[in-house]
Amino acid sequence: MSKKKKFVQAVTSRDEDFARWYTDVVLKTDMVDYAPVKGCMVIKPYGYAVWENIQKIADKKFKDTGHENAYFPLLIPESFLKRESDHFEGFSPEVLWVTQGGDQQLSERLLIRPTSETIICNMYSKWIQSYRDLPVLMNQWCNVIRWEKTTRPFLRTAEFLWQEGHTVHETTEEAHEEALRMHEIYRQVAEENLAMPVIMGEKSEREKFAGANKTYTMEAMMYDGKALQAGTSHDLGQNFAKMFDIKFLGRDGKEQLGYSTSWGISTRLIGGLVMVHGDDRGLKMPPRVAPIQTVIIPIGLEKEGVREAANEIFDRLHEEFRVKLDDREQYSPGWKFNEYEMKGVPVRLEFGKREIEEGYITAFRRDTLEKTKLSFENLEEELKTLLEDVQNNMFKMAKERMDKKTKVYTDYEELKKMADSDLGFGKVMRSGDLEDELKLKEETGLTIRCIPFEQEKLSDKCIISGKEAKYMVYVAKAY
Amino acid sequence: MSKKKKFVQAVTSRDEDFARWYTDVVLKTDMVDYAPVKGCMVIKPYGYAVWENIQKIADKKFKDTGHENAYFPLLIPESFLKRESDHFEGFSPEVLWVTQGGDQQLSERLLIRPTSETIICNMYSKWIQSYRDLPVLMNQWCNVIRWEKTTRPFLRTAEFLWQEGHTVHETTEEAHEEALRMHEIYRQVAEENLAMPVIMGEKSEREKFAGANKTYTMEAMMYDGKALQAGTSHDLGQNFAKMFDIKFLGRDGKEQLGYSTSWGISTRLIGGLVMVHGDDRGLKMPPRVAPIQTVIIPIGLEKEGVREAANEIFDRLHEEFRVKLDDREQYSPGWKFNEYEMKGVPVRLEFGKREIEEGYITAFRRDTLEKTKLSFENLEEELKTLLEDVQNNMFKMAKERMDKKTKVYTDYEELKKMADSDLGFGKVMRSGDLEDELKLKEETGLTIRCIPFEQEKLSDKCIISGKEAKYMVYVAKAY
Repeated sequence: MSKKKKFVQAVTSRDEDFARWYTDVVLKTDMVDYAPVKGCMVIKPYGYAVWENIQKIADKKFKDTGHENAYFPLLIPESFLKRESDHFEGFSPEVLWVTQGGDQQLSERLLIRPTSETIICNMYSKWIQSYRDLPVLMNQWCNVIRWEKTTRPFLRTAEFLWQEGHTVHETTEEAHEEALRMHEIYRQVAEENLAMPVIMGEKSEREKFAGANKTYTMEAMMYDGKALQAGTSHDLGQNFAKMFDIKFLGRDGKEQLGYSTSWGISTRLIGGLVMVHGDDRGLKMPPRVAPIQTVIIPIGLEKEGVREAANEIFDRLHEEFRVKLDDREQYSPGWKFNEYEMKGVPVRLEFGKREIEEGYITAFRRDTLEKTKLSFENLEEELKTLLEDVQNNMFKMAKERMDKKTKVYTDYEELKKMADSDLGFGKVMRSGDLEDELKLKEETGLTIRCIPFEQEKLSDKCIISGKEAKYMVYVAKAY
Repeated sequence: MSKKKKFVQAVTSRDEDFARWYTDVVLKTDMVDYAPVKGCMVIKPYGYAVWENIQKIADKKFKDTGHENAYFPLLIPESFLKRESDHFEGFSPEVLWVTQGGDQQLSERLLIRPTSETIICNMYSKWIQSYRDLPVLMNQWCNVIRWEKTTRPFLRTAEFLWQEGHTVHETTEEAHEEALRMHEIYRQVAEENLAMPVIMGEKSEREKFAGANKTYTMEAMMYDGKALQAGTSHDLGQNFAKMFDIKFLGRDGKEQLGYSTSWGISTRLIGGLVMVHGDDRGLKMPPRVAPIQTVIIPIGLEKEGVREAANEIFDRLHEEFRVKLDDREQYSPGWKFNEYEMKGVPVRLEFGKREIEEGYITAFRRDTLEKTKLSFENLEEELKTLLEDVQNNMFKMAKERMDKKTKVYTDYEELKKMADSDLGFGKVMRSGDLEDELKLKEETGLTIRCIPFEQEKLSDKCIISGKEAKYMVYVAKAY
């Protein structure tokens, strides 16, 4: 008991100080560390393994929908960024500039990509000649840099890892479909794999991507009621095609401009996963992306048959599951229990001499902290079912919390109270005017997270200005 | 025939101008393109797919030997580079400097990593406290930049992709073993997967990595007789541990310095693969890393049953093999044959109505340009055997060429002739003196590629200076 106490003291309580709880958890579980360069992080193996699992899942979905991976340069000439003016205004304040090579001054400054629309569109204009070359469907997994002032590991860092898809299409309809298709794939990654429920919708004029016609977003709710933008997909219309001269000979024999899209998810998802599922004991990993799905902890290693049974169980499980056997003798079972609970391993298998003799294994599930018995004989199947159940239950718990903290507001004063003391998602009606959006942000700190696909009519009036309401939006404080 | 002629004209002959042949092939097969930034390349999907296959193979070997992936920052503070003086001298001339963020000057210049020993060792010094924390075995897949003057796609580019492993050990023996272990894994990647035979050995004092005690290298021979350094593994001794303060409490209770290694292979391997195997028709892909292992080309698509058979064959093969069905009607079978021969697809399956009726499929193998018959019934198995045979034969052909172009030299004038007009590997005896090595380079353009593990005694005298010979080396012109 004393060890558990000590552990609980080591991680700040979620309800006391959520920001500190987050930092404690991601550092103490060896997911991440601060780098010696301002705002940069080191992703340690336990955090990187989550990213590898996300990559594997998303990459397969991209390829199954016809996309190919490629790699475009890290460095972009300054002149490229300037071509699309909204894009330049949006990104130039947070761009890092390369000015010297060896001991020589470069003739043109180069920027480190904050995103790659400009350099990729430049290449596409060279590669695309005819409608026969379309659609072009490419993706890259890479690092990008946005030199932000305020940073937090995974959530907002100067450098982060992501994938960025970039496509060109013959018609506006096809580009639109593509943007929505990838948006839906992101939902599957989030909901079905990270067990992270999301609201699907469109960004407001103010919040959309610099250079896009439409930005589709998925917004997740963190434990503290704040929103996390978890993935975006942009319908770029002909904006970049115009500026980068992506022209093709159409079916009608005439020259036409292409329609492009781009879409991305990043290591930010790892931060989201921590903040959606974690509790005062530490992380809770959804089985589908957990670096370790099951840890085997034998009790009484010195007793006859225990170590042999542990090895046998490991051998039986390790091809189908990501499984770890912890048979170190210098640590007690209790110490190990705490360790893997903090690391959020979904299922712990524990057993001693007695269990082996009686033909069962005790399984501890991290999501509910309950213990059940699995039969030794049928272990593979029962573990598989248990892990699926943990996965589904984690989604259910997160969805219930999000639903509970999502409320309809028709009164502005009530909404302000929510922003002050009871954070969550507000469903409100609004006019569509930019000035109302700015006023909301200034007076409450809330922003419009999205115009959801699933619309409801809550009232006739904009909650902020009282003007005629055009549509419903979700508002929240955001990471 | 006219199409084949046209095709052969399109690619420069290997023997006429090997450099131009290389550029023609990598550009025309859509492996790579020049980027708008000096010395940078865009890796297109057909080239990137080779990299993905190499990654999958190497990553599994790294993990099977206990290594974990992580991610360290792109940017390194200037002060870090300066700490290890050999390392600084080696890398500073080709480093890119970041000096501005947004519109502000940075307080300390940051360099874009040319390799990550410095920033990784800085983190390791924080993470490693006791011998219990050792060994630390990490790897990262990432981009690096070396601002080179003369560049060629894949072979030498300002930015390239690679993996860099970085480990710390308790003893010099363990570090030494690790460096050799990874060196051997690289050999397996090269010989068993890229079908690229290599000479295994150690780098000379002049050619070793800036900051290493010993550098192990594998050297491959290209079609033109020149050498390509295809992968290196460094035993760093305590050099970086000293400068970055990687100390740990030893088993004896005393503070000690760690022993480190680093090792890397890069997208350069793709260039090597092209130059070892390609011929005047274009690429030859070794099956194990080929983006497309088999292309199915039905002949007479309009005839009854042909399209159905093509789809059936694709369905049967596509889970076990990387297979493509080309059933486009706007291109003739002859056009397609040329296209996939140029792209180096190891096996082409072609068939029409007659073959289907008679129960076989014609297989064309790219390595020997021969046709064989595969039975429709037993297709999976026979194709598998055929691909293995292609893989083995490609290695055999490359090995025979390397052996044929590897000669013993005991006369300096003969060696000079080789350097002038008959490039290959020279096995020669040398003294070990730096001045001899410099003289060789200056007078012949040859460099010492490695001191091979397999030593022979060819004579008593250094071929360059006539001094007492210490060991045998391989010399060659190098990429």
